[in-house]
Amino acid sequence: MKAEILCVGTELLLGDIVNTDAAYLARRLSEIGIPLYRTTVVGDNAARLRAALEESYSRADLVILTGGLGPTADDITKEVTAEYFGLRLVEDLPSYEAMKTYFTGLHRTMTVNNLKQIMMPAGCTIFPNGCGTAPGCAIEQDGRTAVLLPGPPSELEMMTERSLVPYLERYSEGVLYSLNLHLNGIGESAAEAKVADLVREAVNPSVAPYAGDGECRIRITARGKDAAEAKAMAAEMRKTVLARGLAEYLYTETDTTEALTDPAAWAVISALRKRGWMMAAAESCTGGMIGTRITNVSGASAVFAGSFVTYSNEVKHAAIGVSNETLSAHGAVSEETAAEMAAGAKRVSGADIAVSTTGIAGPTGGTPEKPVGTVCFGLALPDGTVRAETMHFNPCAPRDRIRKQASSHALRLILRAAES
Amino acid sequence: MKAEILCVGTELLLGDIVNTDAAYLARRLSEIGIPLYRTTVVGDNAARLRAALEESYSRADLVILTGGLGPTADDITKEVTAEYFGLRLVEDLPSYEAMKTYFTGLHRTMTVNNLKQIMMPAGCTIFPNGCGTAPGCAIEQDGRTAVLLPGPPSELEMMTERSLVPYLERYSEGVLYSLNLHLNGIGESAAEAKVADLVREAVNPSVAPYAGDGECRIRITARGKDAAEAKAMAAEMRKTVLARGLAEYLYTETDTTEALTDPAAWAVISALRKRGWMMAAAESCTGGMIGTRITNVSGASAVFAGSFVTYSNEVKHAAIGVSNETLSAHGAVSEETAAEMAAGAKRVSGADIAVSTTGIAGPTGGTPEKPVGTVCFGLALPDGTVRAETMHFNPCAPRDRIRKQASSHALRLILRAAES
Repeated sequence: MKAEILCVGTELLLGDIVNTDAAYLARRLSEIGIPLYRTTVVGDNAARLRAALEESYSRADLVILTGGLGPTADDITKEVTAEYFGLRLVEDLPSYEAMKTYFTGLHRTMTVNNLKQIMMPAGCTIFPNGCGTAPGCAIEQDGRTAVLLPGPPSELEMMTERSLVPYLERYSEGVLYSLNLHLNGIGESAAEAKVADLVREAVNPSVAPYAGDGECRIRITARGKDAAEAKAMAAEMRKTVLARGLAEYLYTETDTTEALTDPAAWAVISALRKRGWMMAAAESCTGGMIGTRITNVSGASAVFAGSFVTYSNEVKHAAIGVSNETLSAHGAVSEETAAEMAAGAKRVSGADIAVSTTGIAGPTGGTPEKPVGTVCFGLALPDGTVRAETMHFNPCAPRDRIRKQASSHALRLILRAAES
Repeated sequence: MKAEILCVGTELLLGDIVNTDAAYLARRLSEIGIPLYRTTVVGDNAARLRAALEESYSRADLVILTGGLGPTADDITKEVTAEYFGLRLVEDLPSYEAMKTYFTGLHRTMTVNNLKQIMMPAGCTIFPNGCGTAPGCAIEQDGRTAVLLPGPPSELEMMTERSLVPYLERYSEGVLYSLNLHLNGIGESAAEAKVADLVREAVNPSVAPYAGDGECRIRITARGKDAAEAKAMAAEMRKTVLARGLAEYLYTETDTTEALTDPAAWAVISALRKRGWMMAAAESCTGGMIGTRITNVSGASAVFAGSFVTYSNEVKHAAIGVSNETLSAHGAVSEETAAEMAAGAKRVSGADIAVSTTGIAGPTGGTPEKPVGTVCFGLALPDGTVRAETMHFNPCAPRDRIRKQASSHALRLILRAAES
């Protein structure tokens, strides 16, 4: 079975929203072993959607459509797909009951146009919507399968887990397992040079290098008859890859069952748990991003005391005791200030270890001595020692990227200390 | 001129990364008035890329390709595109010099496979890479234009602004202007019911409703001969839309020249600037997200003192003086704790106004009395009064969504106070 994803929404073609649905579905398809060869985005236009649907079925057996199941007049996915398959839309009573319950629970009034959402293609398999109004569905006809999912990510993700994945598992061709070796301190091309023959020749497992935010990553992907076989195949290839002189750059490993969305945060939490340490942070240029990334992992409270987002100099002094002398003699962006920030965060929070960031994320605020991209880090360790260091990130990167890189570096400082 | 975007990368089809490049390019094309009808994603496979390229030119005159310009063996975009146009790849000396400078600046060694990146299609227009190694380019032949851009978002965005937008402006068919009316307290279908005829019939400006994170939004899009004309047309339609009983739900407005990526943060900063107020926050369940969102806007330091990410009860007490009696009598997730958090953040930071969050983001930690999605907010106002309230977000939404909604609500509390 070959799959394609077909996303429907003018807001995607106007760039108003980022297509996270496509990434989510792609990952889940990969994990259950259904090959995805193409993703297409079209607007809320019946003729163009119809054309894209016909093209997709010229290449694939399964087309997953996202979006356009809403109550408004420009939501046309269900109507166009039903017409393509020659099916009428009929009222689905269980979906009507679920919708009534949904509106009652939120103390909101159902409007007449919501009823459009429960008109479903005749004979389809209904996918109930656990956290919204639009049911999804699957249609099968003459070897072609269409799956319709709502666009809002929380609804799409829940429906994917509860209904789509169980529905698709019968089509899965073995199981894919991906292991990511996260490297730091080596560029993508230098890393690839060490495993160029594997990238070129290895098929199962395959080996591929990727460049990410402040790291590069080698992905090993194996297809086995079950998860255990795929995992064992990937583990063998892992040894081969690391033996090529890459072991020294490895800072963490992730696989698809873990938090690939933020491997650095995941690795920090895992390492701190092993140590039994609590961490804290003092953030200036990262503005709360260290705290946000750590606490995005459920269960972070076991290792994370808190973070002091000390954006102004006054708060650096009042909240965590950075001395005004240090601030005026060395400036807010200095290793001296970073060191006092880390020490202060550790002291006030009572944590075992604390990291700090202070820097210039840009696009303005740079000087010849401290250009945009300059970030100072402090690290207060359990034994009482405090270290500081300065990094220079690419000054032409956007503000958000520099902040992301700085927060990643701070997380790696904690990680190295916890693993040493 | 009709455009399509063609993104190349197996990592996109495996769901390893989210396609932010497509959203960025889509928004810029929309802003300069070049209609985009389709976006396609294919893997690092020469035959499939070639087929997608041919299909795109059967519908469009301009194809913007992203990704696959890297140094490694699976980067094939340039090779396949050059072959499609019948062009040889030739060494570009200025790009070679730029690459040497780039590596020298980062104290890194250039590897032989980097040289692949400076082999460019003969006769193309080179787009220099301001913050990476891969140059981009534009190829024109017999009414077909291809643009090749590197995949890493910071490189793509800078190249788009410096080279692609100036290059494309000659093809622009008038100027598009979009005005977004951000509504709170009304659902998408109820909002659409009030403007259903406009959504259905209005062409220029067009009117479209969207559902977002804890808000809904009406977008008005006008195409004029220049920006001023488009803006005036949108302003007229704005009056018509708001007169349909939507004015009371309007909490902010954004247009494409402003920070549509985070309208709530943008609105807060703008309102605080007008008031001359500094804000602070105390965050538990949002974990630093309020600070991250505010400080992602350059210039936030004028209005943002800092945030106390008080994740543990110990830090709630030690950093901002929440009383242990309150914590034990009412629990960390309570209006009493939220009120003391906001008051403490305001007092310690010396800010004029402070907001706080404490709640249960899930997926675990919920109880019958305080289910997942329960979030308490505190607001400490300039006149010394402190308020608290509780919100119940959709408990089946993912952790990150509940945190995002809670941080949005906190920002709106500040906004309402600053605008009242």
